Amino acid sequence: MPEGFVTMAHGGGGTRMQQLLRDLIFPALGGDLDAAEDAACLDAPDGRMAFTTDSFVVKPLFFSGGDIGKLAVCGTVNDLAMVGARPLYITLSLILEEGLPIADLEKVIVSVSGTAASAGVRVVAGDTKVVESGKADGLYVNTAGIGVIPDGVNVTIAGVGPGDSLIVNGFIGDHGIAVLKDRGAFSFDMALDSDCAPLSGLVSTMLGVGDIHALRDPTRGGLAAALKEMAGASALALEIDEEAIPVREEVNAVCEVLGLDPLYVANEGKLLAAVAAGDEEQVINAMKGHPLGADARVIGRAVSGKSGRVTLTGPLGAGRLLRMPSGEQLPRIC
Amino acid sequence: MPEGFVTMAHGGGGTRMQQLLRDLIFPALGGDLDAAEDAACLDAPDGRMAFTTDSFVVKPLFFSGGDIGKLAVCGTVNDLAMVGARPLYITLSLILEEGLPIADLEKVIVSVSGTAASAGVRVVAGDTKVVESGKADGLYVNTAGIGVIPDGVNVTIAGVGPGDSLIVNGFIGDHGIAVLKDRGAFSFDMALDSDCAPLSGLVSTMLGVGDIHALRDPTRGGLAAALKEMAGASALALEIDEEAIPVREEVNAVCEVLGLDPLYVANEGKLLAAVAAGDEEQVINAMKGHPLGADARVIGRAVSGKSGRVTLTGPLGAGRLLRMPSGEQLPRIC
Repeated sequence: MPEGFVTMAHGGGGTRMQQLLRDLIFPALGGDLDAAEDAACLDAPDGRMAFTTDSFVVKPLFFSGGDIGKLAVCGTVNDLAMVGARPLYITLSLILEEGLPIADLEKVIVSVSGTAASAGVRVVAGDTKVVESGKADGLYVNTAGIGVIPDGVNVTIAGVGPGDSLIVNGFIGDHGIAVLKDRGAFSFDMALDSDCAPLSGLVSTMLGVGDIHALRDPTRGGLAAALKEMAGASALALEIDEEAIPVREEVNAVCEVLGLDPLYVANEGKLLAAVAAGDEEQVINAMKGHPLGADARVIGRAVSGKSGRVTLTGPLGAGRLLRMPSGEQLPRIC
Repeated sequence: MPEGFVTMAHGGGGTRMQQLLRDLIFPALGGDLDAAEDAACLDAPDGRMAFTTDSFVVKPLFFSGGDIGKLAVCGTVNDLAMVGARPLYITLSLILEEGLPIADLEKVIVSVSGTAASAGVRVVAGDTKVVESGKADGLYVNTAGIGVIPDGVNVTIAGVGPGDSLIVNGFIGDHGIAVLKDRGAFSFDMALDSDCAPLSGLVSTMLGVGDIHALRDPTRGGLAAALKEMAGASALALEIDEEAIPVREEVNAVCEVLGLDPLYVANEGKLLAAVAAGDEEQVINAMKGHPLGADARVIGRAVSGKSGRVTLTGPLGAGRLLRMPSGEQLPRIC
């Protein structure tokens, strides 16, 4: 293996691995990583904390609007934000494929670093393994994260109440269709970026102005899965106005051609929120003042009645029942 | 794909994934996992905490004395223990290969569960992804962990002092050679198990009786890498009595035949400790009272002098310098 590519020795725990860490990974990720220790030693947050993990296997590694590094930070930061936590620390674990260009690895690490900085989290620990050529697709990434849950915050998927307003922060389906475009799944040209973004700042803004009962980021399975999960966990029915759901024209067009439903397409910078009805207006207003909430809108309401049922009402007033997907229409989008 | 095997849909975030979680993973892992939430909400420990991550790509998935699930729990628990932390919570993230027998997955999960219980840690969050057949070797596992660092405990790889006794808790090289045996790397029959075990209980015992300055688990790169790292981080020299290092006859025999050095072979249930000289006896005695410390012994001493130098003194009094390995002699042993 010539210089400039990952070799099995880079995963061996010896000087070659130390070199990779010292020359590339630590300089890019800043001063919180300690090569010498087996674990990061940190001040524990006060009170309640959130803890989560996610592995990422997206294809391709680099896509319009992001890459696997940005996605890995956003995914874990967003999972923390969805229980109302302020993200503090993340870990970064890499499974590298032998032969991966070091330049690609560097791009991913720089992206991890920039995204972590923008989300206000510190990368405090990591791990590097190498598998033989053909045994991974360039690299797989795992991030785990810890966040602090502020006093008085109690956001839970089961916390939706009857009458709650259901709010999304913008256009849905962008991530899945952008990734599909970069896989060459369709031939017409289109400017569309993944929506991949850390939602913790937006969530913090929302928590400051209203009573947020439940949050969910509609990733795998799309908005449909998020709505079904919220309805199921809260044992309420959700009534959705199909026309109120923001979908870009391009996304709708691609979905029509490929036989996809945008409600089932993954997002990586969107949230679905259940908000106390009386706080709807101030929450929407606050969201519109945040770059990630400019297109925020109410899409429906929670009501007592059939537990777990999600009804979509179309332009002519006819309703259809939303179903939970069995799998993902577009595998490996995260 | 017939029933009984992992399919791409199992990673899709829909009903197929929920079924896998509900029918197999949650029942095996006990009551701490909440299918509904994006992150676990937990009481934060008081004071200082440790946070770490590790991915596991061992081949084969099942080996004498353990499997990838047991290894993943031990690896993360041990990383926490090596900074003196008492492990509290771990996450479990799976990258599954399409076509993996569900029965194999179940065995791994049951092993995770049993090992976590024996180490006193709770599995509180997880993630499941699926990649196409050929794109992983059955499964890769990531565990991240949080532990609490008790008040007054200050264990750091840089904390070795001049005069400190260097102690190991038993025979080295078992894990690497056991895995090699199960790969069919040599033909003669041999009863040898991996030493894979959670070391947190042993460490807690040691912390209770003596002044433990530094700990390191000699995994990838073996005892040699751990000694070199300890010498480098503490800017001291280490003088090791080569004959005092416990190596099983079988391990020595295999190493001789295959041209390996047992000092560079990975362990998964061993530790190297730097202990204040005056506390050596009581620490050794306490270790011998623990099942994982029955073969504990002093192998050398830290001295002022050439920073980072590790000298091995042989039976005839001649010394040789220990070198840091460049990579792992036996890739994919963890």
